[in-house]
Amino acid sequence: MENMDNMDFEAMLEQQTDTLTELLENRKMRELKAALEEMNEYDVAEFLAELEENTIPMVFRLLSKEMAADVFANFDAPEQELIINSITDSELGAIIEDLYLDDAVDMMEELPSNVVKRVMRTATPETRNLINLYLKFPENSAGSIMTAEFVDLKKYMNVREAIARIRRIGEDKETIYTCFVVSADRKLEGVISVKDLLLHDDDTVIEEIMDTNVVFAMTHDDQEEVAEKISDYDLMAIPVTDKEGRLVGIVTVDDVIDVMEQEATEDFEIMAAMTPSDKPYSRTGAAEMWKLRVPWLMFLMLSATFTSMILNSFEDALAVQTVLIGFIPMLMGTGGNSGAQSSTAVIRSLSIGDTEPSDILSVVWKELRVSMLCGATLSAINFVKMLLVDRSLLGNPEVTVIVAATVSMSVLFIVMFAKVVGSTLPILAEKIGVDPAVMANPLISTITDAVSLLIYLEIAKVFLHI
Amino acid sequence: MENMDNMDFEAMLEQQTDTLTELLENRKMRELKAALEEMNEYDVAEFLAELEENTIPMVFRLLSKEMAADVFANFDAPEQELIINSITDSELGAIIEDLYLDDAVDMMEELPSNVVKRVMRTATPETRNLINLYLKFPENSAGSIMTAEFVDLKKYMNVREAIARIRRIGEDKETIYTCFVVSADRKLEGVISVKDLLLHDDDTVIEEIMDTNVVFAMTHDDQEEVAEKISDYDLMAIPVTDKEGRLVGIVTVDDVIDVMEQEATEDFEIMAAMTPSDKPYSRTGAAEMWKLRVPWLMFLMLSATFTSMILNSFEDALAVQTVLIGFIPMLMGTGGNSGAQSSTAVIRSLSIGDTEPSDILSVVWKELRVSMLCGATLSAINFVKMLLVDRSLLGNPEVTVIVAATVSMSVLFIVMFAKVVGSTLPILAEKIGVDPAVMANPLISTITDAVSLLIYLEIAKVFLHI
Repeated sequence: MENMDNMDFEAMLEQQTDTLTELLENRKMRELKAALEEMNEYDVAEFLAELEENTIPMVFRLLSKEMAADVFANFDAPEQELIINSITDSELGAIIEDLYLDDAVDMMEELPSNVVKRVMRTATPETRNLINLYLKFPENSAGSIMTAEFVDLKKYMNVREAIARIRRIGEDKETIYTCFVVSADRKLEGVISVKDLLLHDDDTVIEEIMDTNVVFAMTHDDQEEVAEKISDYDLMAIPVTDKEGRLVGIVTVDDVIDVMEQEATEDFEIMAAMTPSDKPYSRTGAAEMWKLRVPWLMFLMLSATFTSMILNSFEDALAVQTVLIGFIPMLMGTGGNSGAQSSTAVIRSLSIGDTEPSDILSVVWKELRVSMLCGATLSAINFVKMLLVDRSLLGNPEVTVIVAATVSMSVLFIVMFAKVVGSTLPILAEKIGVDPAVMANPLISTITDAVSLLIYLEIAKVFLHI
Repeated sequence: MENMDNMDFEAMLEQQTDTLTELLENRKMRELKAALEEMNEYDVAEFLAELEENTIPMVFRLLSKEMAADVFANFDAPEQELIINSITDSELGAIIEDLYLDDAVDMMEELPSNVVKRVMRTATPETRNLINLYLKFPENSAGSIMTAEFVDLKKYMNVREAIARIRRIGEDKETIYTCFVVSADRKLEGVISVKDLLLHDDDTVIEEIMDTNVVFAMTHDDQEEVAEKISDYDLMAIPVTDKEGRLVGIVTVDDVIDVMEQEATEDFEIMAAMTPSDKPYSRTGAAEMWKLRVPWLMFLMLSATFTSMILNSFEDALAVQTVLIGFIPMLMGTGGNSGAQSSTAVIRSLSIGDTEPSDILSVVWKELRVSMLCGATLSAINFVKMLLVDRSLLGNPEVTVIVAATVSMSVLFIVMFAKVVGSTLPILAEKIGVDPAVMANPLISTITDAVSLLIYLEIAKVFLHI
């Protein structure tokens, strides 16, 4: 870090990339290799991924064995495939053995089947069996994201023996900081952190200092629950047991970050009426996107038939009072936006555990008050705006006081309806076991569109005798 | 964990809560205290928070000094305030000294000012100065979420000395697993993990094994960047330096989980046209919500004036061809939903770093193809549906083949327009430094509403000579 005192991290990275690019362009392979070995494996992976396709394997081959495996683990699926297709079986085998099991399983789930076959063939029988075992757990379960590389201790060990064991077997473990105490038949009996080990005397017996009140997950638990536990209890790693209470793996905190990102992306997708996809946007093809998007668009389009039917039944009245037609989009939009605010707020609140389905009454009461405040404000602004802008400024004589009153009163009731429905439906969905995220803007808008229209036209009937 | 072999974690928790409730109801305080001391501090905090307000301080006073501080750190602001108002100054002082600095600063940001004053008065001058210093960093900066409790080492120490230092000072540190090597003037020179220390011989000198290629953040960096670095590089903790390169704090991985949750919530709120709030839904009052929601609703409502103007200019034509009115909501809805899908997908992709603003051309090309596929599908389905349902089933003779063709062709062009605009605007926003999340459903819908109408009515002009 010398001579870089006044540089921020990004500037250092940029300088590093420039240096590497220069070395590569001038074919100074020895210097390039030396520079890469000094770097963080994530940065090496990022640098390689930006190169041209046929250059990537060439530069990858410069890396030392350990660096190669670490960089490989940091690659996305396309680069992993590229490398697998350009190295020998024995090089591939070495990389697979060096990968943590959860990274290997992740990779298998993304690679095309012919590549998976080759990878499996080069792995040792033991690794192959483990990968196969882990691939069998349901998608998005604790089992599917756990890893097998953890430190296990026995309760009769003392601190000195435990630390000696960690020093002996720790190198290949994903985390050494939380150690798991298991019985002879591999049942989980307690956990102990390296911090606790270091802060106790060498002769203290593990059983006396281990925590028997273990927070754990089971292989079939949903990954979202696992993430919540790690987050709530501030854990470094959570043990995963099978139905018999035997320790079969651990999930570490860095996996949780990926899970949280994935689950949030899923919510965003569902809330915008898309079928969630495992793949990032940049790697999803047009045909695939069409499949994820068109069913919902179709459903919502066909649902709008109700709105059309309502409008058609008022067709003759509207042909006489044509001025009313112009405000339909504004009323529908305001209803949709009001409903979207409430549904989004409630969906998110449910998803982070801030609101429980049992809070439904207090939620409705709150949204009712908010909707009256918002509705009254918007209604008043709209009344003034219609008379000042539509009538005076744009000179539309059909916009009378009574028309402005009709539209403004509709605004009030539409906002109230939209907010109450928007906040209630997600909670009801959660109660009956449907993902609340489904009850977001697109569906709420379709409902509020039809009801907004009914409210508007019924009020117009009373005020304008249409 | 004995006798609980076949129970999952949730069932165990429930049983625990039942036992505690029974002990409390029967006023068996000694047993209650003993049971609470055995539990995880998070579970104790959860149990207490569910009790009646006047019972919480009573039960809290049962806890031992260490447990009390840990439980306090796990409380939300309302419970923290309740406890602060019910304990003595010296009890409060002890708790404050036991809190990690980042938790103390978080608390200060949420408490009412009179409570903050009392807390500051009971803290030691040293803690008070530190809290004041940390409170000065901009909201959502690395400085505002960092903590001061880390292990610092010198590069001339050997492994034995380093481990001895960790054992001596480690107890009060937020993490001991990443240690930071600093020079005499506190400049950051390297990092070393406890894993590396344990895996090397006692006599190895730190300088030889420390990593000098340090991933670091600066105090004024945005917390989102900090979270990304910890996630990208799979760090346990990241050092935070001031402008002179001096180490002033660290951010640990558990803080990142909170940051990610907070940033995702913010995106959800912005994307549903709400001003983001620091407080969770359950603790935001109706008047406050009105303030967060009504400005956007107003802006969008007033923007709909353009749509009204377009409709009004076609008023007379629509009065003749009233059948066209009924399909306006469906067309606007389909446009809005199509645009929302694309904008949400792109906003999320930008936010997780999957798409860069420079990818704009490939994004537009992809969305163009998706929109043609979606548009053609929906157009065909709509054509068949209008003739089968609207004309034959609902018996509306005005729905002729040429009317169905007009509406269906509009669907195609509206979907194409909406998807291209929906995917482009977030990228353009990012390019000019505006939060792309603003370009979500509500705003996109307002734009597509007006353009959808124009497309529809222009096509109707050609086909139906309105």
